[in-house]
Amino acid sequence: MNLQESSEKLSAIGFDFYRRGWVLGTSGNFSSMVTRVPFQVCITASGNEKGTLVESHFLTVDANGRVTSGEGKPSAETLLHLAIYRLRENAAAILHTHSVWGTILSDVFYQNGAIEVEGYEMLKGLAGVTTHEHRERLPIVENSQDYVALSHVIENTLRENPAAHGVYLRRHGLYTWGESIAEAKRHIEIFEFLFEVTGRSLK
Amino acid sequence: MNLQESSEKLSAIGFDFYRRGWVLGTSGNFSSMVTRVPFQVCITASGNEKGTLVESHFLTVDANGRVTSGEGKPSAETLLHLAIYRLRENAAAILHTHSVWGTILSDVFYQNGAIEVEGYEMLKGLAGVTTHEHRERLPIVENSQDYVALSHVIENTLRENPAAHGVYLRRHGLYTWGESIAEAKRHIEIFEFLFEVTGRSLK
Amino acid sequence: MNLQESSEKLSAIGFDFYRRGWVLGTSGNFSSMVTRVPFQVCITASGNEKGTLVESHFLTVDANGRVTSGEGKPSAETLLHLAIYRLRENAAAILHTHSVWGTILSDVFYQNGAIEVEGYEMLKGLAGVTTHEHRERLPIVENSQDYVALSHVIENTLRENPAAHGVYLRRHGLYTWGESIAEAKRHIEIFEFLFEVTGRSLK
Amino acid sequence: MNLQESSEKLSAIGFDFYRRGWVLGTSGNFSSMVTRVPFQVCITASGNEKGTLVESHFLTVDANGRVTSGEGKPSAETLLHLAIYRLRENAAAILHTHSVWGTILSDVFYQNGAIEVEGYEMLKGLAGVTTHEHRERLPIVENSQDYVALSHVIENTLRENPAAHGVYLRRHGLYTWGESIAEAKRHIEIFEFLFEVTGRSLK
Repeated sequence: MNLQESSEKLSAIGFDFYRRGWVLGTSGNFSSMVTRVPFQVCITASGNEKGTLVESHFLTVDANGRVTSGEGKPSAETLLHLAIYRLRENAAAILHTHSVWGTILSDVFYQNGAIEVEGYEMLKGLAGVTTHEHRERLPIVENSQDYVALSHVIENTLRENPAAHGVYLRRHGLYTWGESIAEAKRHIEIFEFLFEVTGRSLK
Repeated sequence: MNLQESSEKLSAIGFDFYRRGWVLGTSGNFSSMVTRVPFQVCITASGNEKGTLVESHFLTVDANGRVTSGEGKPSAETLLHLAIYRLRENAAAILHTHSVWGTILSDVFYQNGAIEVEGYEMLKGLAGVTTHEHRERLPIVENSQDYVALSHVIENTLRENPAAHGVYLRRHGLYTWGESIAEAKRHIEIFEFLFEVTGRSLK
Repeated sequence: MNLQESSEKLSAIGFDFYRRGWVLGTSGNFSSMVTRVPFQVCITASGNEKGTLVESHFLTVDANGRVTSGEGKPSAETLLHLAIYRLRENAAAILHTHSVWGTILSDVFYQNGAIEVEGYEMLKGLAGVTTHEHRERLPIVENSQDYVALSHVIENTLRENPAAHGVYLRRHGLYTWGESIAEAKRHIEIFEFLFEVTGRSLK
Repeated sequence: MNLQESSEKLSAIGFDFYRRGWVLGTSGNFSSMVTRVPFQVCITASGNEKGTLVESHFLTVDANGRVTSGEGKPSAETLLHLAIYRLRENAAAILHTHSVWGTILSDVFYQNGAIEVEGYEMLKGLAGVTTHEHRERLPIVENSQDYVALSHVIENTLRENPAAHGVYLRRHGLYTWGESIAEAKRHIEIFEFLFEVTGRSLK
């Protein structure tokens, strides 16, 4: 998918997610694969509100996070996107959001190491899940401002949790991905729904 | 009502319900009667987001669930729609949604066999109910991926609960219907309102 | 204000309130004064969804609730509107909504006879209130399907609570009014805000 | 920034915040700096709904709060805006909102003297904050209808809390500011997000 098409689709998602309160302030960042070989990823530039994105708010980076086109600084969390693309070879898009319920659960379940959800029909919205009897284990990683270190932690976490459809940075936000932008968006919605159900069911 | 008119009305409902969070991901499915004799039902095809439906996302099926027009696979839950049309002879439309509060209540009240709501003015929004003193008993059915078996369970449940305006699949979602698309939509709104009141009143 | 202008303003309010979940299903009803002498009130006809009102969904009634123009049946609760116009001589508009938080509070505080709110800056949005130190006492009346009897109860309640800016029908909904449609709308928003604050603060 | 540009940006914020329920009724008020020397501030006139602002709903005032252009009365809380502009020399815009969660927290934490939030990634949306390890201390001031006295209290509070990004009037609302209108808006969103997380996490 070329840069223009990617940026249009990701901008539409930003418009929507902003209104739902999942990317308030200038939080969140989105990327999608332009080409695997040579490795080119389209990613939101740093510091823009996600509800009003246009093509110039995106740039492309290579496998080392170097800007190959576009203006501005790539998202500070570009290294985390790159780590996910390395470890999830089929990922064609990555979405990162900050929601109220996710933030709360990432703290409540930090000691367990993961947010675990089981027995809901909505789990079938996660790629490859065909029954509500699935247990999704979403690993929680301690937050950090050292993105190099954090990208290594995320690599290890993805390696140790091959079935996970996302990873949660504690008190920070959700990373999920998909084989298409639409699949990544669906994963966000599924997780957010399940977070709200789980959060509202806490004693 | 012909296919075009049905699909337009159901698409508008999808647009609205998606924004309220009742059909996130690609969850939910909608149908309406085209003709009773011969039996022709318009139903959402499988796998589409309900917030952006257009006519090509619908197809028609006969009484056995065989596709008679349109492209794609009918919703995996087509058998459940057909069971409801058989048991509720006046039903002209069926809506199925997944909401946070409904999901929670279907679990909390599973042992009771039903979500029971009584004494609210909003109950009068259910067809035939003329006083807030009505008690609505919404049966809860265990969820299953075996839709043939599930359709039989739903048939029995509807037979045993002739006054019920809907049925809830545990940790899955609500089925309700109406003598028109508008009535089915009203039933969804009434149930969702009552679910939220009941859910927020839980100790 | 003539019928066309009234119906346009009330329709815009319906559009807005429906999206906030305060008039789901076909619940709620709205009226405004066309002329005090002779007494002519514009009121929503029965059975329409409040999110998509147009002028033909309104009719005018006289002081006895007889239809003087327009088609359809006036709202079943017309007698309650008339009682309020009799007892609140400056009322030029009346709005009636059904919200989740109001419904819950009307039940929780029924034994107290009123929802009482005190000490919030938002109280200043109620006509004539100039300080947050105001205590608003919103009387709760038991719900009934006998609107003749209920209209008498509401008359007595308004007489006994001359400072009240509204009245709540238990497990049913809020009635409030204003010297203009805009003031009545503001009162709904103020009450809804205060209901949510009060409801979320309940132990 | 001239009056027209300021009023357009502030009106767009009002449109947005009204829909989120942060300026219901006619609550809230917004201002931005036109010129520091001579001191000219653009501020919302009193009594208008914030969801439908146009340029004529704004006026300009000087350092003493005297109207220098525009019609109507300046917001009753103009003195509070002026106090903030005096104490925060880089402030180019001030936004004041009334939200449900903020109102609740300002009461719950009143005895502590501040709403304190620590350890969330979203804190980085506050100007100058570069790590989630930041602790934001948002002072709570008792509400009052004596705006002269209140403006002195706010001056003292800002002097004693040089790092604070806002101040909360108890059971009333949030004041925050920024070096631009966009930054002030971002601060509102960050605080509201953190209020909701904190409020929903209260035992």
